[in-house]
Amino acid sequence: MANSKYEYVKAFEQEHYLLPDTYIVVRIDGKGFHKFSDKYNFQKPNDVRALQVMNTAARNLMNQFQDIVLGYGDSDEYSFLIRKECVLYERREMKLTSIICSAFTSYYLAEFQNHFEVKTSFLPMFDCRCVLYPTIEKVKDYFRWRQVDCHINNLYNTSFWTLVHSGMTNQQAEDRLNGTVSSDKHEILFKLGINYNNEPEMFKKGTVLVKEKEKRWVVKEYHVDVVKEEFWEKYTPGWI
Amino acid sequence: MANSKYEYVKAFEQEHYLLPDTYIVVRIDGKGFHKFSDKYNFQKPNDVRALQVMNTAARNLMNQFQDIVLGYGDSDEYSFLIRKECVLYERREMKLTSIICSAFTSYYLAEFQNHFEVKTSFLPMFDCRCVLYPTIEKVKDYFRWRQVDCHINNLYNTSFWTLVHSGMTNQQAEDRLNGTVSSDKHEILFKLGINYNNEPEMFKKGTVLVKEKEKRWVVKEYHVDVVKEEFWEKYTPGWI
Amino acid sequence: MANSKYEYVKAFEQEHYLLPDTYIVVRIDGKGFHKFSDKYNFQKPNDVRALQVMNTAARNLMNQFQDIVLGYGDSDEYSFLIRKECVLYERREMKLTSIICSAFTSYYLAEFQNHFEVKTSFLPMFDCRCVLYPTIEKVKDYFRWRQVDCHINNLYNTSFWTLVHSGMTNQQAEDRLNGTVSSDKHEILFKLGINYNNEPEMFKKGTVLVKEKEKRWVVKEYHVDVVKEEFWEKYTPGWI
Amino acid sequence: MANSKYEYVKAFEQEHYLLPDTYIVVRIDGKGFHKFSDKYNFQKPNDVRALQVMNTAARNLMNQFQDIVLGYGDSDEYSFLIRKECVLYERREMKLTSIICSAFTSYYLAEFQNHFEVKTSFLPMFDCRCVLYPTIEKVKDYFRWRQVDCHINNLYNTSFWTLVHSGMTNQQAEDRLNGTVSSDKHEILFKLGINYNNEPEMFKKGTVLVKEKEKRWVVKEYHVDVVKEEFWEKYTPGWI
Repeated sequence: MANSKYEYVKAFEQEHYLLPDTYIVVRIDGKGFHKFSDKYNFQKPNDVRALQVMNTAARNLMNQFQDIVLGYGDSDEYSFLIRKECVLYERREMKLTSIICSAFTSYYLAEFQNHFEVKTSFLPMFDCRCVLYPTIEKVKDYFRWRQVDCHINNLYNTSFWTLVHSGMTNQQAEDRLNGTVSSDKHEILFKLGINYNNEPEMFKKGTVLVKEKEKRWVVKEYHVDVVKEEFWEKYTPGWI
Repeated sequence: MANSKYEYVKAFEQEHYLLPDTYIVVRIDGKGFHKFSDKYNFQKPNDVRALQVMNTAARNLMNQFQDIVLGYGDSDEYSFLIRKECVLYERREMKLTSIICSAFTSYYLAEFQNHFEVKTSFLPMFDCRCVLYPTIEKVKDYFRWRQVDCHINNLYNTSFWTLVHSGMTNQQAEDRLNGTVSSDKHEILFKLGINYNNEPEMFKKGTVLVKEKEKRWVVKEYHVDVVKEEFWEKYTPGWI
Repeated sequence: MANSKYEYVKAFEQEHYLLPDTYIVVRIDGKGFHKFSDKYNFQKPNDVRALQVMNTAARNLMNQFQDIVLGYGDSDEYSFLIRKECVLYERREMKLTSIICSAFTSYYLAEFQNHFEVKTSFLPMFDCRCVLYPTIEKVKDYFRWRQVDCHINNLYNTSFWTLVHSGMTNQQAEDRLNGTVSSDKHEILFKLGINYNNEPEMFKKGTVLVKEKEKRWVVKEYHVDVVKEEFWEKYTPGWI
Repeated sequence: MANSKYEYVKAFEQEHYLLPDTYIVVRIDGKGFHKFSDKYNFQKPNDVRALQVMNTAARNLMNQFQDIVLGYGDSDEYSFLIRKECVLYERREMKLTSIICSAFTSYYLAEFQNHFEVKTSFLPMFDCRCVLYPTIEKVKDYFRWRQVDCHINNLYNTSFWTLVHSGMTNQQAEDRLNGTVSSDKHEILFKLGINYNNEPEMFKKGTVLVKEKEKRWVVKEYHVDVVKEEFWEKYTPGWI
């Protein structure tokens, strides 16, 4: 249609195109989820329903965007791997980042209200970023980083909340854990009747969503180790 | 907490900081809203409920982000002006863009289901971009651009749908409008019993949301001309 | 001419376009000039010939690029102001930065050998950067920053070298100046027979190159205060 | 040293850090070398002295920057490959681009005046850009692209200037070559007594500079095919 004399302002728009033929990892992160989890009474340290809402949103996102081939999430964050060949939206960074973030938010909220009673003054919000990796080895290390982080956080949080549930104040629990290493935390839990190794895999390892080729591409959910090379050999030959 | 040997992958994250002391315009745009509006049977050319959902989402966004001082929207898009002094998230482009987009999406969906029956396979999604403007004159021209665009589109769409509602096929209506100028469309409408000047201001001018200082900052809604200098003199002295 | 199947690699080139209608300041800085100045036996604290080589290179650059309207230099650095309307090379950042840097280097070396005997193993090299400023007030503060920096450095260096020339070792001179404020340094100099106020203006204030309109645009050289508003009122009305 | 109240302007400087662990190709290109070559009466289509000045400048650059492991040049351009592990200047794009461009310019001018009488009003200038490539295969294709381009241009230029030297005007030569393919040009040259295959390798293939490990790293000059895989197998195992 006709243009106006004001259209010159469009020249101020700046596009950043992500380097071609390079892996894109998109990480989505809950905004203010500490408070959010309080408002909706999430069980601590892990709320199964809340995790499943994340997983469902992630699965829906992967079904919508065919270039996303892998997802990994725990707590209030999710990371997605986009094929390096992806040319969606000409690889414009803001376009990719904002649409993926918006889609995830919609999927999350739509699923969330199936499990929680939504308060309109506390709606879920996420931020999102794109990170480029030149090789698959770096991509693997990225997902290893997130899973090791999940493990460290979950062991801490499990120990913390078990101490609190056993009668400590938050401050006492924090003090008790201060300076402890992994084996100390296992022992603390063991004395309180919890064998950390028997905790649910979804809590300890997070959730891996893999796009697998059957008759058509389907998204499969796992709670497995992505640090070891075996995972990558077994699950990714179709698209690496 | 403890770091892992995989944490080096964080070095691949790249931040773009928006130029300081420069106006930021954020534009949110519906993704695939042509199909979306069909799925939910939006009235054509304008669906009042759908426009009000946009306005409510925009108002909520402006209440959440105090640095947003002005909003303008029509159809499935909304533009927001962020004060040039804003240092939110250190002015990181992806952070600002993605959180604003996510918040708008949440507000939209939460309000949308008050008026429409949501189909989980057709959820609302938006993209979002930040544009920098060095002076307030450029900012004014940006909003003038959007309002002139709204006017051009709305006159066309009103003419098109009036022709269709009068019995033409979509193709016939398109052919009839091909090559017409503004006055031709006014005349076409007049002959079909519509005086375009009497159409609702919200359709013709879009919606302006202004943050005004009363006892506290409040968001006021107008459907007024932002092309003329008067608007800027009257509504913006508090924050320009 | 004909393209080859390898031309796809061109798609990896990324352009960054500097925001339109925004002031561009280009700063050029000598690389390793501490060592460079030793190799060529520059007089300390200020070598008039070396400063004049910088000024000549800067003047030639301003004559070549009509969009550069102001220059300011001292020691081994020079800053240039490019008109905000400049569209040279479509405002591509790497193109502007690299060509201006290359041109300055050529002008510097060509003039340098008129005053010094060039050693091919110690050639002059510079780095260069572009910085955007949205308003002329910020631009003024930029040049004020550089001139205040020149003043601070020159007072220190004059004091330091006067102490050294009076018989101190470098370490002794450094220790003597440690913790002194401006008035202390003036006094130190005064006791050694130097009234700092009588030092050459080029040393104390650096060099300002202004593009002025006579019959044609000419580059005029000054050694004046750019901190006070008077400078900007007097010298820049033609192009601000 | 002490800071001034104007130092806030430094916050407007924006750095772009090149993606880590990714190959960097730096391409330097003569600015206005068509006119430059006329001013200095370069022999057409190829001036051996001028090419050697380029090669010497490139060799000096590679000796200065240890991270540059490969160079390729023809006519007035040169491309350099920087190791993907390079962390020089923290991989800041403007810093790398401008210093490499400035160094090349200095080396070029210093060598140029050994062979030509410099006119101070026509000094050599270059632009420079950095391009990222995620894999060595893309890097190889980049250098193949430049060499194929060299071949296409040199065959054309050799044909054009041979026709002109045989008595045609520039326009007649251009018309004669219009629409011809490679074999046509070979034939044209053959009829004028030139077997293109016997032309110097430096003209037909350009110049390859390889950093090779002997007792220490040395820069070796070749005029060989880089399109075939053999080159890469033979010359690059030390650093790929």
